[in-house]
Amino acid sequence: MSENSAYNDLVSLYRRIGIINDAIAILDWDQSTIMPEGSASARSEQLATLSVLSHDLLTHPKISELLDKVDFNKGKIDSWKVANLEGMKRAHLHAISVPADLVKEQSRANSTCQMEWRKAKQENDFAFLMPSLNDVIEVTREVSVAKSENLGLSPYDCLLDTYEPGCRSERIDEIFSNHEKFLSGFLGEVMEFQSKQPKVVPLKGPFSVDKQKKLGLKFMKDFGFDFSRGRVDVSLHPFCGGGLNDVRITTRYDENDFTSSLMGVLHETGHAIYEHGLPESWSYQPVGSARGMAMHESQSLLLEMQVCRSYSFMIYAAPIIKRAFSGSGQAWEVDNLHRLYTRVSPGFIRVDADEVTYPAHIILRYRLERALISNDLLVADLPAAWNEGMASLLGITPPNDSLGCLQDIHWPSGSFGYFPTYTIGAVAAAQFYNAAKKQLNDLEGEISKGKFQSLLSWLRSNIHSKGSLLSADELLHTASGDNLNIKIFQEHLQSRYLN
Amino acid sequence: MSENSAYNDLVSLYRRIGIINDAIAILDWDQSTIMPEGSASARSEQLATLSVLSHDLLTHPKISELLDKVDFNKGKIDSWKVANLEGMKRAHLHAISVPADLVKEQSRANSTCQMEWRKAKQENDFAFLMPSLNDVIEVTREVSVAKSENLGLSPYDCLLDTYEPGCRSERIDEIFSNHEKFLSGFLGEVMEFQSKQPKVVPLKGPFSVDKQKKLGLKFMKDFGFDFSRGRVDVSLHPFCGGGLNDVRITTRYDENDFTSSLMGVLHETGHAIYEHGLPESWSYQPVGSARGMAMHESQSLLLEMQVCRSYSFMIYAAPIIKRAFSGSGQAWEVDNLHRLYTRVSPGFIRVDADEVTYPAHIILRYRLERALISNDLLVADLPAAWNEGMASLLGITPPNDSLGCLQDIHWPSGSFGYFPTYTIGAVAAAQFYNAAKKQLNDLEGEISKGKFQSLLSWLRSNIHSKGSLLSADELLHTASGDNLNIKIFQEHLQSRYLN
Repeated sequence: MSENSAYNDLVSLYRRIGIINDAIAILDWDQSTIMPEGSASARSEQLATLSVLSHDLLTHPKISELLDKVDFNKGKIDSWKVANLEGMKRAHLHAISVPADLVKEQSRANSTCQMEWRKAKQENDFAFLMPSLNDVIEVTREVSVAKSENLGLSPYDCLLDTYEPGCRSERIDEIFSNHEKFLSGFLGEVMEFQSKQPKVVPLKGPFSVDKQKKLGLKFMKDFGFDFSRGRVDVSLHPFCGGGLNDVRITTRYDENDFTSSLMGVLHETGHAIYEHGLPESWSYQPVGSARGMAMHESQSLLLEMQVCRSYSFMIYAAPIIKRAFSGSGQAWEVDNLHRLYTRVSPGFIRVDADEVTYPAHIILRYRLERALISNDLLVADLPAAWNEGMASLLGITPPNDSLGCLQDIHWPSGSFGYFPTYTIGAVAAAQFYNAAKKQLNDLEGEISKGKFQSLLSWLRSNIHSKGSLLSADELLHTASGDNLNIKIFQEHLQSRYLN
Repeated sequence: MSENSAYNDLVSLYRRIGIINDAIAILDWDQSTIMPEGSASARSEQLATLSVLSHDLLTHPKISELLDKVDFNKGKIDSWKVANLEGMKRAHLHAISVPADLVKEQSRANSTCQMEWRKAKQENDFAFLMPSLNDVIEVTREVSVAKSENLGLSPYDCLLDTYEPGCRSERIDEIFSNHEKFLSGFLGEVMEFQSKQPKVVPLKGPFSVDKQKKLGLKFMKDFGFDFSRGRVDVSLHPFCGGGLNDVRITTRYDENDFTSSLMGVLHETGHAIYEHGLPESWSYQPVGSARGMAMHESQSLLLEMQVCRSYSFMIYAAPIIKRAFSGSGQAWEVDNLHRLYTRVSPGFIRVDADEVTYPAHIILRYRLERALISNDLLVADLPAAWNEGMASLLGITPPNDSLGCLQDIHWPSGSFGYFPTYTIGAVAAAQFYNAAKKQLNDLEGEISKGKFQSLLSWLRSNIHSKGSLLSADELLHTASGDNLNIKIFQEHLQSRYLN
């Protein structure tokens, strides 16, 4: 078999895996949006069956054989192929590291715990969750150790690498320590600064779902969302899902408050335009996929935080928002809407957190999950550790575990190593946007006029069209001339929240 | 390996196939209802990939081996298992009869022709369709010949057997000849009779989609549609799809005429309650599936034609319909609505045909498709043969092929052997309903009061809960005490249309 034919066989195999994963993604979307409740268990079986098929293909010994046959010598094959082979190898290594029994055991532990979590959260009963959360942590630890040998990484770094290839805890430690120090002074300054500013004038509802939907669609269109290759629907927890040429974002509407749904739509739109901009000729191949969860989050946060919560954007958006809800008075003016969208206030709940306090929620979770995985923290001690961390980072103590360590679904569903990507994404977003502003002529002026084409083009050529050709670090460096740099994020915060 | 363990292995395999087929069904539904147009080709690949996986499992040599190990001796294992094994064998035989290359060739020919058909129909250009339709017929013939040897049936009977197990052309010939003779006199009598009746008073629209939807939901609920295990949505061509505990029906709304959408919803509801009533403990097994397309159609037609177009139903429904659209005047009274829903008028289009003329459309298609498959009719001669048949059966001649042999998607998509199930279903529906009326106390009285529970229970215990335990003939005989009997259908027509 020639080297080329081995490569082509790999391409076919990964294409097949990608297609099955796309089918899974649509079934997942359906489950979260419109599926009748009575078919939950049938759907679980469909998803499990297809996941096993996909996993069986990805772990097939034939892939190892084929990978061995292909020469990785970078001089001989083009860089896209090299990156594709690296992506193939990485995915295969991750998958074969975990024995089939452990995969099953993990899936079982995660679904049990996830189910019990709903009850525990609702009833504020951490003790009830403890045994199943313990199981999840044990099996996650086992998985991370199994991967560790094959990947040559520490167990926790194997978990990180699942979500963001190349992401390592050493780097995160450094960034998070730096930012914790920064925050300890900055947060107080912001609170002090805001206390001297005019109060936010509240917006009076109700705001009909129809009007909210129309407004969201208007801005999605402005940002170039391609409706011939995507949809927006409603789900309990907003997400961006779907597959190739079929990107499906969701939101939820609150008739008393349109503001968070609107930003949610713009956030998911950022994810969606990344997916839409991936290189079509590398569809279904590892190199044609998005570069990892942190880079994905950078695209949603670039849109939501960097662009849409900026004063420039509000100059454009405020009159449109006002018209959409037939608003009148000061509450609907640029200044007030901008103030509303940049209000900072330490709170217990991560998903409701503002841009300034959000990283504190992540730093806490990152440290706790590392300690849980390394067995330095027992599950029984989690609530106390959580509350101490909140007090230390944000100066507030949750009155109960539902507002504390029970709030997120991530750990009960087995997602360890995911949380850091939120903040790495926020840092990268600031850095990308900063570079775009430098490289494009009067970007903020354009945004204040509702012109987003040059920004979109910049994102397309610097990020989206690269797929996974470059590592996240290379991608950042090529686009911004710098490695991941927390200072740019901090400067952004200073400029936005102290002016 | 013990016999029992061989059986259990078969059950697992067919369960897996069933689960994959369910996933396919949901993706199919999504494609026909809400999928963005730009993902058509990605979706085709998903469906093709999953179909190949399902087909690979069904044709796996292991199934033959396992089937050989199980003793079919009816004395030794219970009748459900026997029927399940027969269903397994039948599905496996159908699948292995066709070589993989031919499966691919058929799929390719069908999709090309189906695509060209849209254009040919729109532009009334039969010549354009001829080459690809010829391909479809040739490959269908090849498939039917390949199956013929393994199944011990004539090639055309193999096609019939795909959709309705056990259905044979000899029987259909007999039934259709009988009915053609009946129709030749009866249709004239009905037209004569109706000409002496008061004219139908037209209903004046527009009828908002919202109101139509609400009305449809109301009747669906009346008939016991379980919304926790199903949905109703919109698609261009109404259908009943989805999977286990997730039955999804569709309709389309015309703001100028609610009547056909409403009956469409009730028709699909008949299909849906059949699916909902299948034996849960045999889920995903051949014996747990519906008994074939003719029996399926009998359930939709029993609801639509036997129940909902009856005078008794209209007594219940007319005031509800009137209220739904705030109607007033004679047009909205029972007599007029019943007259509207039982109006007979020969026309060119099958899907618009009334209950009396519908079988004529089917008889025509059945004869033509048999002749096409047996090579007794050349594709080039199809339009002329079609028009002659319409003239002979209904006394009308289509002015063009779009209103003639180009109207249906069935042949271009490779569905030969499907058409007869519509009329076999209509005959069975009359027979089942006739039996229910005899066995239940004052069923029509109950229906006129909007009480459908005893009918639903009768269908559940006599038909739905049987799955594929009995052959279609046995099912009919057990429920009605008679073999398939066209006379009961004809008596129903006489009683409804000449009184």
